Amino acid sequence: MNFTQLVQQRQSCRSFDSTRGVEEEKLAAILNTARLSPSACNAQPYHFSVCRGETARQVAQTTMTMGKNPFAADVPVMLVISEMPYSERAAAGSKTMGNDYRSMDIGIAAAHIILEATNQGLGSCMLGWFDDQKIRTICNLDGAVRLVIAIGYAKESDPLRPKMRKELTELVSQF
Amino acid sequence: MNFTQLVQQRQSCRSFDSTRGVEEEKLAAILNTARLSPSACNAQPYHFSVCRGETARQVAQTTMTMGKNPFAADVPVMLVISEMPYSERAAAGSKTMGNDYRSMDIGIAAAHIILEATNQGLGSCMLGWFDDQKIRTICNLDGAVRLVIAIGYAKESDPLRPKMRKELTELVSQF
Repeated sequence: MNFTQLVQQRQSCRSFDSTRGVEEEKLAAILNTARLSPSACNAQPYHFSVCRGETARQVAQTTMTMGKNPFAADVPVMLVISEMPYSERAAAGSKTMGNDYRSMDIGIAAAHIILEATNQGLGSCMLGWFDDQKIRTICNLDGAVRLVIAIGYAKESDPLRPKMRKELTELVSQF
Repeated sequence: MNFTQLVQQRQSCRSFDSTRGVEEEKLAAILNTARLSPSACNAQPYHFSVCRGETARQVAQTTMTMGKNPFAADVPVMLVISEMPYSERAAAGSKTMGNDYRSMDIGIAAAHIILEATNQGLGSCMLGWFDDQKIRTICNLDGAVRLVIAIGYAKESDPLRPKMRKELTELVSQF
């Protein structure tokens, strides 16, 4: 699968096969790819907590309040991304520029994770709805939780959907 | 080139060949990939300004203050990512969660851009040092500039460098 196909194949999976776990070598490949992500000043201001089994279910519960993400109960692996302190140089740059580089860095790493998951034949879904405090307790984290990524095999019935996106004419200006 | 090789090959290029422009079909491939990026609530809260020639040089000048990024003068294409208003749903979620999803979304799109640039045989470098106000004027933008990505051919003498990263034992907790 070339990169263009990979990007086309990647979609948010909301229908996981609860009977299939994720092979450890596939998780290792995902974490290795996440590790190679670039970040501002190479600060790598994030931490990855890989939650399986009962821990995954506890994390999932915090993403399911107010009727959200009912599929999360079936997800075998929840990858929690929390933030770590900036390097001094990145912190100074962020303050000077009024720019949240740490959240951008977390986005860059998340993109690497979901693309590698797709590359490994896995489904994934980035979840922005969760209980920060509860997950910090579950995963023994000091830094704020910024994103939870559900990872597992999609149900076979989960088809590739067309991607609904703005047109390039709206998204892009040319100079 | 498979995805693992692509991630290994991608590195920040700080030595561009000023004599080679970027083919329009390669820029189109990069923009198409950026367009397919996922974002919170599919809000796509970003705008891409593709700057060539004199406009690229003007943008580059704003990244070179205080002795930074001297290589930027040689870059044929500067891709400016600015933010667009959130969708109401994403804005509400961001406020409730205290989470900067828009910066994460921009990071996700930036990762797609630099990986597609690598896939097209191009060098790229994400620049977080720039003059927001000047670029808004140059590119006629309302939204804040969050990232500038330099794109072009690397000089042939630019070797693949080893990636300096934290060890997995530091980056990852397993549950």
